[in-house]
Amino acid sequence: MNGPRIYTLPAPVRDQKRGDALLSFVREILPHRRSLTGEGLRQTLDAIGERVPLQIREVFSGTPILDWEAPAEWQVHTARLSLPDGRCVVDWADNPLHLVQYSGPRQARMPLAELKPHLHTIPERPDWIPYRTAYWTDDWGFCLRQRTLDALEAEIGPDGEVDVFIDSRLTDGAMSIAECRIEGRSDREILVSAHACHPALANDNASALAVATFAAEALAQADGLRHSIRFIFGPGTVGALAWLAANPSARKTVAAGLVLANLGDRGDFVYKRTRAGTLGEPLAVDRAVEAVLPDAEIRPFEPFGYDERQFNSPGFNLPVGRLTRTPHGEYPEYHTSADDLSLLTPESLEGSLDAVLAIIHALDGNERYLATRPYGEPMLGRYGLYDPVGGKALAPEAQRAALWLLNLSDGYHDLLDVTAKSGLPFAAVREAADRLLAAHLLAPAPHDPASGADDAS
Amino acid sequence: MNGPRIYTLPAPVRDQKRGDALLSFVREILPHRRSLTGEGLRQTLDAIGERVPLQIREVFSGTPILDWEAPAEWQVHTARLSLPDGRCVVDWADNPLHLVQYSGPRQARMPLAELKPHLHTIPERPDWIPYRTAYWTDDWGFCLRQRTLDALEAEIGPDGEVDVFIDSRLTDGAMSIAECRIEGRSDREILVSAHACHPALANDNASALAVATFAAEALAQADGLRHSIRFIFGPGTVGALAWLAANPSARKTVAAGLVLANLGDRGDFVYKRTRAGTLGEPLAVDRAVEAVLPDAEIRPFEPFGYDERQFNSPGFNLPVGRLTRTPHGEYPEYHTSADDLSLLTPESLEGSLDAVLAIIHALDGNERYLATRPYGEPMLGRYGLYDPVGGKALAPEAQRAALWLLNLSDGYHDLLDVTAKSGLPFAAVREAADRLLAAHLLAPAPHDPASGADDAS
Amino acid sequence: MNGPRIYTLPAPVRDQKRGDALLSFVREILPHRRSLTGEGLRQTLDAIGERVPLQIREVFSGTPILDWEAPAEWQVHTARLSLPDGRCVVDWADNPLHLVQYSGPRQARMPLAELKPHLHTIPERPDWIPYRTAYWTDDWGFCLRQRTLDALEAEIGPDGEVDVFIDSRLTDGAMSIAECRIEGRSDREILVSAHACHPALANDNASALAVATFAAEALAQADGLRHSIRFIFGPGTVGALAWLAANPSARKTVAAGLVLANLGDRGDFVYKRTRAGTLGEPLAVDRAVEAVLPDAEIRPFEPFGYDERQFNSPGFNLPVGRLTRTPHGEYPEYHTSADDLSLLTPESLEGSLDAVLAIIHALDGNERYLATRPYGEPMLGRYGLYDPVGGKALAPEAQRAALWLLNLSDGYHDLLDVTAKSGLPFAAVREAADRLLAAHLLAPAPHDPASGADDAS
Repeated sequence: MNGPRIYTLPAPVRDQKRGDALLSFVREILPHRRSLTGEGLRQTLDAIGERVPLQIREVFSGTPILDWEAPAEWQVHTARLSLPDGRCVVDWADNPLHLVQYSGPRQARMPLAELKPHLHTIPERPDWIPYRTAYWTDDWGFCLRQRTLDALEAEIGPDGEVDVFIDSRLTDGAMSIAECRIEGRSDREILVSAHACHPALANDNASALAVATFAAEALAQADGLRHSIRFIFGPGTVGALAWLAANPSARKTVAAGLVLANLGDRGDFVYKRTRAGTLGEPLAVDRAVEAVLPDAEIRPFEPFGYDERQFNSPGFNLPVGRLTRTPHGEYPEYHTSADDLSLLTPESLEGSLDAVLAIIHALDGNERYLATRPYGEPMLGRYGLYDPVGGKALAPEAQRAALWLLNLSDGYHDLLDVTAKSGLPFAAVREAADRLLAAHLLAPAPHDPASGADDAS
Repeated sequence: MNGPRIYTLPAPVRDQKRGDALLSFVREILPHRRSLTGEGLRQTLDAIGERVPLQIREVFSGTPILDWEAPAEWQVHTARLSLPDGRCVVDWADNPLHLVQYSGPRQARMPLAELKPHLHTIPERPDWIPYRTAYWTDDWGFCLRQRTLDALEAEIGPDGEVDVFIDSRLTDGAMSIAECRIEGRSDREILVSAHACHPALANDNASALAVATFAAEALAQADGLRHSIRFIFGPGTVGALAWLAANPSARKTVAAGLVLANLGDRGDFVYKRTRAGTLGEPLAVDRAVEAVLPDAEIRPFEPFGYDERQFNSPGFNLPVGRLTRTPHGEYPEYHTSADDLSLLTPESLEGSLDAVLAIIHALDGNERYLATRPYGEPMLGRYGLYDPVGGKALAPEAQRAALWLLNLSDGYHDLLDVTAKSGLPFAAVREAADRLLAAHLLAPAPHDPASGADDAS
Repeated sequence: MNGPRIYTLPAPVRDQKRGDALLSFVREILPHRRSLTGEGLRQTLDAIGERVPLQIREVFSGTPILDWEAPAEWQVHTARLSLPDGRCVVDWADNPLHLVQYSGPRQARMPLAELKPHLHTIPERPDWIPYRTAYWTDDWGFCLRQRTLDALEAEIGPDGEVDVFIDSRLTDGAMSIAECRIEGRSDREILVSAHACHPALANDNASALAVATFAAEALAQADGLRHSIRFIFGPGTVGALAWLAANPSARKTVAAGLVLANLGDRGDFVYKRTRAGTLGEPLAVDRAVEAVLPDAEIRPFEPFGYDERQFNSPGFNLPVGRLTRTPHGEYPEYHTSADDLSLLTPESLEGSLDAVLAIIHALDGNERYLATRPYGEPMLGRYGLYDPVGGKALAPEAQRAALWLLNLSDGYHDLLDVTAKSGLPFAAVREAADRLLAAHLLAPAPHDPASGADDAS
């Protein structure tokens, strides 16, 4: 990590094939019947593991996890509602959303009126099936189209009987969590996490699983990474908690992190800041996102959403932000059967992949320097860094980046600061820094332990 | 002040009778001929004392008060302007505003031209009588309608003679200051002050005298107040100064305070921040007002206005803000005979009373907590604090308040911070905190003397 | 610098003659053929020296100056392009812009195609001659109207031959830098600098040379200045660097400074903050400009522009801002032959002079005070500082200024803070401070070395 070096930011290659490949991978993993545990989750992790080296850990059911515990393993063979005459009304085989997640086994005939509290619909979207969970209760239920329920009710009335059949098991098994770690020159890590527990929802979260997988694939081939990069794929909440419980020193090793979700829809990027960067000054990851995605909507931290809730709980307080396109709950198809492939575009997926890679590169390439000739501007022409004929109104970008760097390289400001203050692209700043390093006009700043810079700086 | 407790915020009861009762009290005290001293002031304090226990202190005329001294006591028997033929032009008996406050005795016949420098009118409002004072000078004068002056001038011309008769006395007496102190569980005080020296002006300040009186009445019946509450009713400026001079340790005991004025008109609330909260970060009282009255207009401190000037002088620098509806000088009737009952409504008075009580309750109920399980979110369902069926887009308010509290209860953020950051009502945050305390998920934060939190936190 | 004193701000006398005199001086110095060195620069400094006492330093060519060195001295006798038949196409005698600055001697006949890389035009402004420099290279060239080039090309074609004749010399000479220092009561200095190297451009920078000269003239007659004022006139970049190299203790002596440029055009004021005042809190000079010119556009520091780049390089980091009307590159005539007298008005020049003087007076008159009676407001009437008849809505400006001062004179806030927070004119605040000093209600604040107030406070 010492001494100047020439850092090359791989330029994103706009390539229809990359977007298509991302969409293909979404299509491949979408059908797996994911949940907090079980076969669908393992199939998904296997598919990811075919592309990147994965270490999969199984946490036995009942293992204490902070204030929680690892859930029982849930397996479903059959689940349906039918009429006494045998006609099927709702069948889980048609759509994994039909069964409330973690519904236990049940076989009963009951009047519709008694069944109704266990039926979930979206009255204002009569053709969509909602997604509901009952992880930590004994509850059970079915999710169905309002239109289906209306037809049933019209036919049999409140007293008409319905056969409930759920052939499911909640057994002592294990919860799976997968990690892919890309070794860099230091143990300081950039964490990327995507939840893998939502069944059959394309944007939430097959899209981000695909983007994270492809990002890991690209970074595994990158050269000279300063940080190690760790990707986590696991169930939401309890998966993140299990990782945190198993990594109590994360506060020291995690330099920056991103939770990824909903990265395939047509919406613009929305970035949610870290907790620490909301309560105080923005952290490196916050500044990196704002530098790399100047058009992203930036929001403060709040304790709702995805696993950033756990990473940013006050005890851990990790420097982890969240990148989405349209956030949870803000598109009508959210948590319904309409969150399907029609929401996604190859361009959105590809743009998300580029964004994630650019953020990681900015975090990894961010450093603080000292100008070696801080008294007045150096005579850039002497170093071949200045346009020989002067007098024009606007200097070229490279020259402007060099002047900003020379002015702000006082050991306190890092490249992300220079990017923010100059309004120049991070890549231009990084490139100018490399030229100035080669010309010995910049030198790495000494590490300042008093700066309290725990985050990637 | 230690240990969790369940705090109940009394819900304001919207009740036409309360507004009417406030207006009746304004009507009762309005006619008293208040001034810095004298009978009208004492009658007003007596009326307040019939509702709440008052301690009245008399400061003898001439007693040094910081850079000032207690004024002579002013008594008026008769004051009028008349013509040599005996016709009365202006009579103080008709309206106490007719005499410039603190005009000394005088009997003279003089041409109108010589009298005119002693006559005060509002030319652009010919039917209104202005309110003028000459407390600390030998000056004297009459305030009258421009229309009256015009008629007089037309009749007698500049050389016409007028008889001036002021039968008043400036004697060694005393200035009265009243206090009502409601004992809480600690000596830390919340101060509420309203000036009681303006004669016959309804909004400025009979309205605030009524609101403060009724607030004291309500709080005297409240249970479990953490702070003591002190109400001060006295003459403006020199009354506040006398209180400050007599309470040199106020900087230590006053946790927060409010100057109240102009609380009966139809305008929206305007809050003027404390001096310290303007020069630096907002203090608890500033944050409480902003949390409780999110629609109030917030203004920075400036050294003009009412007694907040004295409380916020740099030597005292007390954490005292000011709550008004329309501020002084910003409504045309200000300091004129048109500041009468027609400006007031029962709804405005009642809303002001509710606002004052809610601010005091927020200040009193504001505390800092520590999450007992800060590593990841606690499993709220385990404590009966979570909706058992998940997957919906929006959690209920109580659950959101709980998650905010758990995330921000790091010993630094208090309930007003949580209110501000969450955008939730203070009452919802307070209630959620009580539930989390009962569930032992929050514990009171240790007092942090290094925080320099001199204000109510 | 101790003890109260009555400070009199000389009121600007609006006077057509001052604007005309400024414009006359611009007209006088405009024709001199200025460059980094040479006769035109010396003629300009001589003209300034006829009005104010100047100390001129000559830095020998080749003298090391930080990362640079003093340039060779450039002299031009003749420079022209002509046709083999003797017809002149471009002649430096007509306009000093015709020759690229620092073009060396050359005599050659060459086809137009070969010459063209040495010809500079502005295609979109075919009648304007650009201004170009080649200070630190061996390059040479001519600047001409696009229309002239078009006609030449039409007549002779790419193969037609042109005679190049530059009779210039680059010799071991010297670079001139002039200073005018006005002695104040302390060694702390206010620095004013204007670049003097641009030939034949009226706004950039004959205008600012005139304003600075007249400001020096006015201040030389001012009485009781607390700071010394230093004016620097010299070539851009290398001149400023030479001054900085020769004044390594400037960080200690320079309390505040202004780079002046483009002060004659019709645009509004644009102020560019100091580097330190951009990265942190605004410095005294930043606050002074914002107090004195509340309508000026305020911009953050950036490392482009004029000599503020050098003064604000990270090693020196001097508290020097920049005042212009329309900044460089933001008016179409910038660095062209159209930057001529038609851009300037006497009113603009006079307004600029007033602004510069008012900023210097605000910096010089800025102090911190302590209220001697900080407990409550003093009884201003006792000191003849209060309107004897009270009750009106708005106090006069002098009284408001006094109340602001008494409230904020806690030893931390200076008069510029009071100006900013009160919204009152600096002159009113300064005058009220003098009255309060005379009444012993204010006293000078002790110097607080811990405040880190390195700038003019």
